[in-house]
Amino acid sequence: MKHESSHRIIKRLRLKFNDLPCYLGQFATMVGDRGGAFGEISTVHLGKGYKVRDVVISIPGEAVFEQICDAIRAMVGVDLIEVADVVEQVHLAGKIEVKPRVPVESLDDLSLVYTPGVASICNRIHAEPELAAQYTTIPNNVAIVTNGTAILGLGDIGPVAGMPVMEGKALLFKLLADINGFPILIDSRDSDEIVAAVRAIAPTFGAIKLEDIRAPECFEIEDRLDAELDIPVLHDDQHGTAVVVLAALLSIARTTYLDLKRSTVGIVGLGAAGAGISRLLHAYGVETIYGADINEEMITRFQARGGQPTDLDGVMEQAEIVIATTGVPGLIRPETVRPDQVILALSNPDPEIRPEVAVAAGAQFAADGKAVNNALAFPGLFKGALQARATRINNAMKIAAATTIASFVEGEDLVPGILDLRVHQAVAEAVERAALKTGVVRFVPDVS
Amino acid sequence: MKHESSHRIIKRLRLKFNDLPCYLGQFATMVGDRGGAFGEISTVHLGKGYKVRDVVISIPGEAVFEQICDAIRAMVGVDLIEVADVVEQVHLAGKIEVKPRVPVESLDDLSLVYTPGVASICNRIHAEPELAAQYTTIPNNVAIVTNGTAILGLGDIGPVAGMPVMEGKALLFKLLADINGFPILIDSRDSDEIVAAVRAIAPTFGAIKLEDIRAPECFEIEDRLDAELDIPVLHDDQHGTAVVVLAALLSIARTTYLDLKRSTVGIVGLGAAGAGISRLLHAYGVETIYGADINEEMITRFQARGGQPTDLDGVMEQAEIVIATTGVPGLIRPETVRPDQVILALSNPDPEIRPEVAVAAGAQFAADGKAVNNALAFPGLFKGALQARATRINNAMKIAAATTIASFVEGEDLVPGILDLRVHQAVAEAVERAALKTGVVRFVPDVS
Repeated sequence: MKHESSHRIIKRLRLKFNDLPCYLGQFATMVGDRGGAFGEISTVHLGKGYKVRDVVISIPGEAVFEQICDAIRAMVGVDLIEVADVVEQVHLAGKIEVKPRVPVESLDDLSLVYTPGVASICNRIHAEPELAAQYTTIPNNVAIVTNGTAILGLGDIGPVAGMPVMEGKALLFKLLADINGFPILIDSRDSDEIVAAVRAIAPTFGAIKLEDIRAPECFEIEDRLDAELDIPVLHDDQHGTAVVVLAALLSIARTTYLDLKRSTVGIVGLGAAGAGISRLLHAYGVETIYGADINEEMITRFQARGGQPTDLDGVMEQAEIVIATTGVPGLIRPETVRPDQVILALSNPDPEIRPEVAVAAGAQFAADGKAVNNALAFPGLFKGALQARATRINNAMKIAAATTIASFVEGEDLVPGILDLRVHQAVAEAVERAALKTGVVRFVPDVS
Repeated sequence: MKHESSHRIIKRLRLKFNDLPCYLGQFATMVGDRGGAFGEISTVHLGKGYKVRDVVISIPGEAVFEQICDAIRAMVGVDLIEVADVVEQVHLAGKIEVKPRVPVESLDDLSLVYTPGVASICNRIHAEPELAAQYTTIPNNVAIVTNGTAILGLGDIGPVAGMPVMEGKALLFKLLADINGFPILIDSRDSDEIVAAVRAIAPTFGAIKLEDIRAPECFEIEDRLDAELDIPVLHDDQHGTAVVVLAALLSIARTTYLDLKRSTVGIVGLGAAGAGISRLLHAYGVETIYGADINEEMITRFQARGGQPTDLDGVMEQAEIVIATTGVPGLIRPETVRPDQVILALSNPDPEIRPEVAVAAGAQFAADGKAVNNALAFPGLFKGALQARATRINNAMKIAAATTIASFVEGEDLVPGILDLRVHQAVAEAVERAALKTGVVRFVPDVS
């Protein structure tokens, strides 16, 4: 579903402030009053009696931005010099590149990496296929596959319009786990076609990350590829999200002294994310999981996996922990919130109930989707699987990822910071260990 | 065909030389006598009365290398400290990586490249698909597709064993033309399957480079993809090679005052390379092209395109310019060489006739495949096509590439140096211009 109006936009303003603190204060108040928030503020020039500052703001839409510009023009002591679309700038020409890992500065270098040197490496791999793990990027390559039918909260916008998201995932793969993620866009809604294409190109990769493919096709595509390929295949919208939600629930359980396994959980919306969450919580040991969805097929699927079907009211009445992944803003009415309920309303950009509204209505704890970013899970999850030479990513590996993420939470935070590399490395190690312990790996022969 | 014995291997020796020039001389002579050649020589330590040097040598096979090591151990004044397999080292963990093009150091940065910032870019592309050319890597991504059935001179070793070559091509793409090349390995010999897989993933790329796919399947796969996709599809073994051969012939024609278009050309071996060369020479205006192949299908195909079928003897008797691409070392007997013939014996690593043998037998000019490396053509050819937003790579573009390459040749060289970036840039510009002039591009709307 598309809720364009509430997608926040980000701009960088170059502003001239007269040298009295009140001007920055007046400006900041004005922006805040209109729903704006601040990113980086830097000083780019010190003049006589004035400063030029670059101020990054995020605002709810272009119309509000126009109001803010008008308001600045009406202010005394503040001049608007320039507006830059920083989001546009950072996306220009795309966000990733394929680069050499080795220097090639001379014909001697070239003879090593290309002909004639490369032939001996090819021959060695041909004679002993296992050597591909040593001499190629294959074991560290992950395909980021989408058909563009469920891009972020934007919906079915097609694979090409989804490319900026896929490049973002590839960027995070490298940044957070030193993995080569490469987008693969498939312009098809036919599960057979998608499965055939991914299967055909699979020898290139150590794992397959399915991304932003809509339900219910995502279930079949993942199941079939998982069964057919001997490398991990994971639909991130289901399982990456589930891992971060489990991590968040473990944090909440710790600060609220909740026994997660004996809690009653209710899931509203049983699409990709909801289904993934219910499966992982079930595997973790949560005994009672209620689920609601307006789509019969999703309900049937949920029930087949041991879930207890009900409706939205049923969830609100019975669940201690409510997790909503419907894509419907404001779906949960405050009057249905029960005292001491934990509510994760995860739809982006607009949750089913705003956290502050849920808490005001009596919830013990509430959060929205901004707090539960699956970029916390997927880099380490895939890295651990690749390191272990895993053939799949099983529940033990996902639970290891979730408990490790939760172990880094400090104070009352829900999850640790996404850019903390220690977290991703620890997740990778825990996932690798879980893969080895559960034996879902291609073992290497003993040293003879 | 596989001729393992004559694939040269490359090693780096760490040697201790006593401080008299004669020792290095004796060592070098010994290596040279055994068919070795020298790469980089660097001094890594100056001792009292001795020097430690790293010497890179290339030798014809492991057996010869063992002899060289034994010979060093028997020498006075030279000690072998260490042997490093530099080829192995440079290939460890693969030769390419997918990296961010933009810095992500803070959560503010993250909000630009990922959610929420990325959503606005996705929405803009969804509304105006042309913007994908501006805000994604798609127009600069090239798939390097192989099924591994004709890897270098090694033959049918499968796609995974061919990966080091594909990574080498990707590396050269970036190095020489700032293109994102990404290998796509397809484990199939079925043309339908390969065409379907490439078609499915094509939205990810600005062009498709087919690589090391054997004949005759390569012809059908290229033709079908070229017809079905609106981006350039080029089988490098046919056309990249053809472009460099045409460039080499233009150089030869200039130094030998040959009228290339009115010359009689004979091609021995009408597989991928031979077929590509005959087609491009025909398009360039060469009127008489004889061709020989032991495979009837290749002959039929050649004849259908206006070639004159004959056999090896027929080529040697009638052609002023002989181009051999058979993969059969020593196929051309010196006694069949006619005075003033130009002979390009291109099979790697062992040519149909060694250049010095051909010249001794009376040839006016002779060269082997080492001199005709298609890395001179493909980077600029693809870059020009991508810059022009070409829908295909036509003959005008290939001829523009060849004449541009030839224009950089100095003195009696056959082709310019591969690492000369000016060449690749000039090729790209010439190819772009040819694409625009012949109209095989997606035009952009006029500014309104």
